[in-house]
Amino acid sequence: METNNIDPEVHARAGLTHIVEPNDLTGAALVQIAGAVEAYRLIREHVGTAPASEQQQVAELLDAHGASRAALRLDAGLERWRARAVHTDPEADLKLMGHLGGGIMVPGDANWPRGFDALGLGAPLALWFRGEGNQRILRDPGRLVAIVGSRDATEYGRTITAELVSGLRARGICIVSGGAYGIDAQAHQTALAEEAPNAAMSREDPLPATIAVMAGGLNRLYPVGNEQLLKRVHRQGLLIAEVAPGATPSRWRFLQRNRLIAALCAATVVSEARWRSGALSTARHAAEIGREVGAVPGPVFSANSAGCHRLVREGAATLVTDAAEVIELLDLPALDTFRAGEAPASDSFSNVRTESRSDHDGLAVQDLLLLDALGVRSPRGVDQLTVVAGLGIGSVLGGLSRLAAAGLAEQSGNGWIRRFPRGREHQRGAPTAP
Amino acid sequence: METNNIDPEVHARAGLTHIVEPNDLTGAALVQIAGAVEAYRLIREHVGTAPASEQQQVAELLDAHGASRAALRLDAGLERWRARAVHTDPEADLKLMGHLGGGIMVPGDANWPRGFDALGLGAPLALWFRGEGNQRILRDPGRLVAIVGSRDATEYGRTITAELVSGLRARGICIVSGGAYGIDAQAHQTALAEEAPNAAMSREDPLPATIAVMAGGLNRLYPVGNEQLLKRVHRQGLLIAEVAPGATPSRWRFLQRNRLIAALCAATVVSEARWRSGALSTARHAAEIGREVGAVPGPVFSANSAGCHRLVREGAATLVTDAAEVIELLDLPALDTFRAGEAPASDSFSNVRTESRSDHDGLAVQDLLLLDALGVRSPRGVDQLTVVAGLGIGSVLGGLSRLAAAGLAEQSGNGWIRRFPRGREHQRGAPTAP
Repeated sequence: METNNIDPEVHARAGLTHIVEPNDLTGAALVQIAGAVEAYRLIREHVGTAPASEQQQVAELLDAHGASRAALRLDAGLERWRARAVHTDPEADLKLMGHLGGGIMVPGDANWPRGFDALGLGAPLALWFRGEGNQRILRDPGRLVAIVGSRDATEYGRTITAELVSGLRARGICIVSGGAYGIDAQAHQTALAEEAPNAAMSREDPLPATIAVMAGGLNRLYPVGNEQLLKRVHRQGLLIAEVAPGATPSRWRFLQRNRLIAALCAATVVSEARWRSGALSTARHAAEIGREVGAVPGPVFSANSAGCHRLVREGAATLVTDAAEVIELLDLPALDTFRAGEAPASDSFSNVRTESRSDHDGLAVQDLLLLDALGVRSPRGVDQLTVVAGLGIGSVLGGLSRLAAAGLAEQSGNGWIRRFPRGREHQRGAPTAP
Repeated sequence: METNNIDPEVHARAGLTHIVEPNDLTGAALVQIAGAVEAYRLIREHVGTAPASEQQQVAELLDAHGASRAALRLDAGLERWRARAVHTDPEADLKLMGHLGGGIMVPGDANWPRGFDALGLGAPLALWFRGEGNQRILRDPGRLVAIVGSRDATEYGRTITAELVSGLRARGICIVSGGAYGIDAQAHQTALAEEAPNAAMSREDPLPATIAVMAGGLNRLYPVGNEQLLKRVHRQGLLIAEVAPGATPSRWRFLQRNRLIAALCAATVVSEARWRSGALSTARHAAEIGREVGAVPGPVFSANSAGCHRLVREGAATLVTDAAEVIELLDLPALDTFRAGEAPASDSFSNVRTESRSDHDGLAVQDLLLLDALGVRSPRGVDQLTVVAGLGIGSVLGGLSRLAAAGLAEQSGNGWIRRFPRGREHQRGAPTAP
């Protein structure tokens, strides 16, 4: 596949997904101002300070979105992107994904998820997909319900998840989840087990039963233990991601992936979650962009339901006990307001939620990215870290000293490794590790 | 004890509790206009039509409360009360309750429950009490929390009830409940088992651990199976009721008793309740007069938690999982507004809630009273029914024909008995009886 056979917009956006982290508002602003093709060219070819005109316009646009921190300045962005830009190869990515039964879609495409409009400037630059399911389903948030929850699900959580999914499938709803262990896996699995109610009517082209929204590149089916399940999702549904093939599923990308799940669907239901769980971040994303959120109650003595109870108590979720009550959520007038509203800047790149991390509270976004880039066993050099984290050399050096001071990073041989502070599990009710 | 040794106000109100049903707004209006002594005299001595002046004033007062139905007219009231009035003997009632370690309190008394002010015209005319607990506690809604729930409690419901009560007792809260089987019994029992935290400081005069609000006269400890428990409540706490000794705990009185529990306490918590449960009526009473309401979630597969989930879904209750979260409810500013506001007329005598009865929906209040008065096995004559139900002869005759038409009453020998229509259990999820 040659460059000149590829639509320039598609080519540029494919490249940008390799360089710009999800929900990096500076990148999104530059694309909005200059267009994807020009933005991609500028990022790859630029040396020195940012062009004054673009610098000014990006600042003004971010300002209008209430996001005007120094880290979001265009020249900071250009420094951040530089190391990765030289490694970009959209042709190879598109070719690889084509071989894997997939491709890319960009805003304006017929099946581009309508739900993403609610993310405003935080909407993905492009969407990679894999699988044989009809992509048409992505257009219609009202047919999509997210079922999410903890990885360490209990029998109770798995049972209610299966019941909800069966009931929703019987009503023609497609189940969206994150492909993880526990509740996510149960949701996909039950969705695949149920025959779609309209399969008889449209046997040649049934809509997919389930969609897995991945945090890393779609070349790998992650986590490994779910490989067989995700292969079945591929055959009967869809896998999607906003990051390029080869991207690792870092913590940052997991958190940002949650906003895609929330935006894609009319409703998000948390069927079982601990006091601190990534599923709560998905639920809060959904609530913040005006989507319906449900949470399933459970025994108050089960730590695995504490997160669901928390959401209900905080007013972020409606208590739901069965599929009919989830369907009730979909009937609310809020469904009509999908295209209205932009994502609040407070939930964007400039201000990541750190709910699900007890030991990283207060870290700046760039330090979180750097933390993700550190290996647990193999030390990584500073140059390597600029590439993996997508940060400038200054940010990496400054960040390493901050992380070292916080006990989260340590020099080792010629490079740096990740360290874990003591007592990092602050599960509510559970004793703190000695 | 002679009449001339008793305060006339106390004497009259003691008599009125024998005649006027709880939350009978006509009686309350007459007392407010004419005073208790004159109201009692009028009710006992009156023959023929109601005095024009009082008739007019009662109508105006009820009108001002949005309650102006024909059944509430003073002459209808006087007819309703006549049969019972001749059997009234306040001296005997006061003597009996004195022997049983109790007495009566009236509005204006030092320990009159401040929380009753929220009931407005629906406040009780007097309050009978029994027991050795210090009545001072009744004054302070902020120290009182109601824990209520289903009679057929599960092990889960009993366990969480015990946990909540222990936690609340440790914080010096007095537990209010209804003395029934199941959750109520567990709440009283745990409260009695815990030593009050301030017992050491005020050993001579500790505040009571628990209060049982009864639907019938306090001469009987009802239900029989809870007799030992209620005797312990007597020794270490208080039993209270707004009806005179000898009054049976009819369905109407159970429903109205629930409003007293709600008004007495700063917060009401439903720890386990089915989809249709009397505990929900207590919770709704509490919500309607601006009290805090909590409901404990449970497994969604447990029918015994369906009522709690329902309250949370309807926005009538806050989800609570432990005593600390109940205490949080008490900290809310709503606590400062106790004396403000009158009870909405929609929740009064003129418009009883029929949530917990599936087979009596749509029956007028007077027919409900008549239904309560019918025996299940022994037939009762029309004259007897006028006394037991506290209704005029016309209302009884008309009511019997309506109840018979609805399949709820049947002539038997010289009297009438109660009948039960088919399929009276409409428990959610449970199959309807054939």
